Amino acid sequence: MTRPPRQLSLNLFIHPAGHHEAAWRHPDTQPERIFTADFYTELARTAEAATFDAVFFADGPVLHDGVEFNSVGRLEPLLTLASIAAATERIGLVATASTTFYDPYNLARLFSTLDHLSNGRAGWNIVTTASEDAARNFGLDSHPDHVERYARAAEFVEVVTRLWDSWEDDAVLIDRASGRYADPAKIHDVAFRGKHLRVEGAFNAARSPQGHPVLVQAGASNEGRAFASRYAEAIFTAHQRLADAQAFYADIKAGAEALGRSRDAVKILPGISPFIASTEDEARALEREFNELTVPEYGLRQLEKLTGVRLDHAQLDGPVPAELFADAGDVTDNSRSRLQVVAGIVEREQPTVRGLLHRLAGARGHRVVAGTPEQVADTIEEWFTQGAADGFNVMPPYLPGGLDDFADHVVPILRERGLFRTEYEGTTLRDHLGLERPASQYASPAADPAHALRDASGTDEASDAVGQEEARTAEPVLA
Amino acid sequence: MTRPPRQLSLNLFIHPAGHHEAAWRHPDTQPERIFTADFYTELARTAEAATFDAVFFADGPVLHDGVEFNSVGRLEPLLTLASIAAATERIGLVATASTTFYDPYNLARLFSTLDHLSNGRAGWNIVTTASEDAARNFGLDSHPDHVERYARAAEFVEVVTRLWDSWEDDAVLIDRASGRYADPAKIHDVAFRGKHLRVEGAFNAARSPQGHPVLVQAGASNEGRAFASRYAEAIFTAHQRLADAQAFYADIKAGAEALGRSRDAVKILPGISPFIASTEDEARALEREFNELTVPEYGLRQLEKLTGVRLDHAQLDGPVPAELFADAGDVTDNSRSRLQVVAGIVEREQPTVRGLLHRLAGARGHRVVAGTPEQVADTIEEWFTQGAADGFNVMPPYLPGGLDDFADHVVPILRERGLFRTEYEGTTLRDHLGLERPASQYASPAADPAHALRDASGTDEASDAVGQEEARTAEPVLA
Repeated sequence: MTRPPRQLSLNLFIHPAGHHEAAWRHPDTQPERIFTADFYTELARTAEAATFDAVFFADGPVLHDGVEFNSVGRLEPLLTLASIAAATERIGLVATASTTFYDPYNLARLFSTLDHLSNGRAGWNIVTTASEDAARNFGLDSHPDHVERYARAAEFVEVVTRLWDSWEDDAVLIDRASGRYADPAKIHDVAFRGKHLRVEGAFNAARSPQGHPVLVQAGASNEGRAFASRYAEAIFTAHQRLADAQAFYADIKAGAEALGRSRDAVKILPGISPFIASTEDEARALEREFNELTVPEYGLRQLEKLTGVRLDHAQLDGPVPAELFADAGDVTDNSRSRLQVVAGIVEREQPTVRGLLHRLAGARGHRVVAGTPEQVADTIEEWFTQGAADGFNVMPPYLPGGLDDFADHVVPILRERGLFRTEYEGTTLRDHLGLERPASQYASPAADPAHALRDASGTDEASDAVGQEEARTAEPVLA
Repeated sequence: MTRPPRQLSLNLFIHPAGHHEAAWRHPDTQPERIFTADFYTELARTAEAATFDAVFFADGPVLHDGVEFNSVGRLEPLLTLASIAAATERIGLVATASTTFYDPYNLARLFSTLDHLSNGRAGWNIVTTASEDAARNFGLDSHPDHVERYARAAEFVEVVTRLWDSWEDDAVLIDRASGRYADPAKIHDVAFRGKHLRVEGAFNAARSPQGHPVLVQAGASNEGRAFASRYAEAIFTAHQRLADAQAFYADIKAGAEALGRSRDAVKILPGISPFIASTEDEARALEREFNELTVPEYGLRQLEKLTGVRLDHAQLDGPVPAELFADAGDVTDNSRSRLQVVAGIVEREQPTVRGLLHRLAGARGHRVVAGTPEQVADTIEEWFTQGAADGFNVMPPYLPGGLDDFADHVVPILRERGLFRTEYEGTTLRDHLGLERPASQYASPAADPAHALRDASGTDEASDAVGQEEARTAEPVLA
């Protein structure tokens, strides 16, 4: 059998009880286990048996609103993935971490160690953290605005990649006879001096199996695309409609090419949250079952926070007030992107307030589908073959059942159609995604060009240039 | 059989290839594996089979000097322990992390998650990081002095314990019927405003199995004892002689009692690095074998750094120059404590320079012993029963062989003598150490006293007082 030239990438996005906001209330979910290792290990093993590329956790250093009505607490994802790494062999491990609220030396160590411990399966979902409340957990009077956050993020990515490259691949000698452990000429001080960040010394571990972890970004907003086009090797994105996804896909690929990167060096994975049943009617009934478990107080509060407009319990079964989207200009760029998605839904579907809350309860703006395994496979194939996706960020509405249904019923169809692997061909996340292992930036024949540049001026011109360019970019949304 | 009233605690201190500085050159060590998960998992399983209380990693966010001649690189310990947690059931997991170079919200999450993932086996070795070079990796022009570091450390411990207590033990309801996930009255904003640190919000995870991870400290210097007496639940310490260890032990226990703590609430574990063989002569020959693998350039450089005095390769076989300890007043408090240990060795033993380098190669100032299993067990029993130790920080000079010898030959003797458990009685690290599970500070009948105090003044008087008192304390050494 001839293999098709292109294969889907499938990433399991794990939201503790499931991506539907009422998942924890459903009798088939396990909110009692969301702070245990076994729960996540079992999910990762299911995904690995289904040959998913990776498992992924979102994150933020803050307790999100609404803990009274939703299971918004979470474990720290890097440690959770280290635990999963020990219980799995092949599946990739992608953690979200914030460039605004971490120091680069610490973050570089955490991800390098995950890559070592997992034999090359680590990925970093780069976020700048949009929450004002997070800033209050880090001694800041106010949250840095998106310009400042993205300028720091650009420097951050520059410096952590230098740290990951600090030891060239052949730096370690282990020459017992001579007593030389390593070649110090192949271990480099990173000597990074940017506007926001300064790191002087060398890294304190050998280069990791993948060279460096896969860089992931969730640049769904218009302004975030520049950052994603430059740095991202995979993108998690949110689109409701094929045409929007196609436009985003074309834009990112063109942006990467314009920066001298290959179109294939960045993989685009829209989110999909599927309710699966043996008939379409049953699938829609299943979706309704979850929607009816939503707590209106919770949804109203989330919508108020998004729109800045007070909403009333009494309005639940009336039309969505027009003023809900009037203040879009006054909110942050991040929220505006999401607001546009929501406004689009209201315009097309004319729901009641309650209907809108149900619509948003599914996966926080990501695409929710309900259908048979064939229908779900059909829409995946359509987006994959019509220039909208290189794969999908699979967001089960409830766990573990929603994952089991996808693995047991949708994956076999995708395999039959020749769209998805039947076994892993490689061992690293880069292998699964078809990404090359990067060479150390210090390993070029003209040794250590970054140092030469820095030595000339005392500051880091290359990274300053990037910092300025990226200063116009904005926040990833919806992830 | 009647159990003796007191049982030893044994902690395995894992230094990648072993604690002897030349361990990596020995044919029985495995420096090729020090960046892999399996290496550490195997060590931890050996320690667990021998019913050790815990495994422990030192750490610092810096590449230490001398990578040309020694395997000084390392993985990040929290992630390594999360990986070990998945492959073990009972053994405790203690990671070092710096109060100077971490943000408390991030650090609180990492340790809380380790405690959740391991079902209550996490411990935190609190350090302030003495290395000047580390500061250069975090954008600082100069390293904060020990007064400032310890003032921040005291606030840091206060705020992370508040974060760990933020969710009371019964905060999570999971009431599917009513739609209430948690009781917001039992989830507390920590509202901490100190001189060095500010954290406003609530924690974002449920309280962990042990209430909070075990707090460990390595307060070997005189000035560090106040910090240890107040906060530490276990202390790693370094003493060459019984009398010194007894004096330290008595001082810490008295200090804890003076602060209203129980003597049993703080466990004191001196380091011991044992060369073990079937005769004393063979054990001494084994120690010599490792000493002869040391690289003089490396040892001289370390000694120069400690003393501030230039040393010459030609002097290796002459006496230790008197001026080596003349400048002790000019170095930091941290180095001075270690310098005193080294000066004591020189005074008592009158070694050549090479002899001194060999003496220091063993375990960086910790106690090295060489003998039969009975002799090693004898000295452990003597210190344990003579008021010098509640247990030991076992530092195998080479790995995995040095651990295997201890587990196979010394542990059975300690068990026969009724000094050490034959199986785990509990499941958490607190169980193993005989430490109580702390109640949440927010759970007292007078709800939320910390808030009342803060609300009165707008700043945090309790933690300021602690910060000032602790400002006189200095750096843990030798760990």
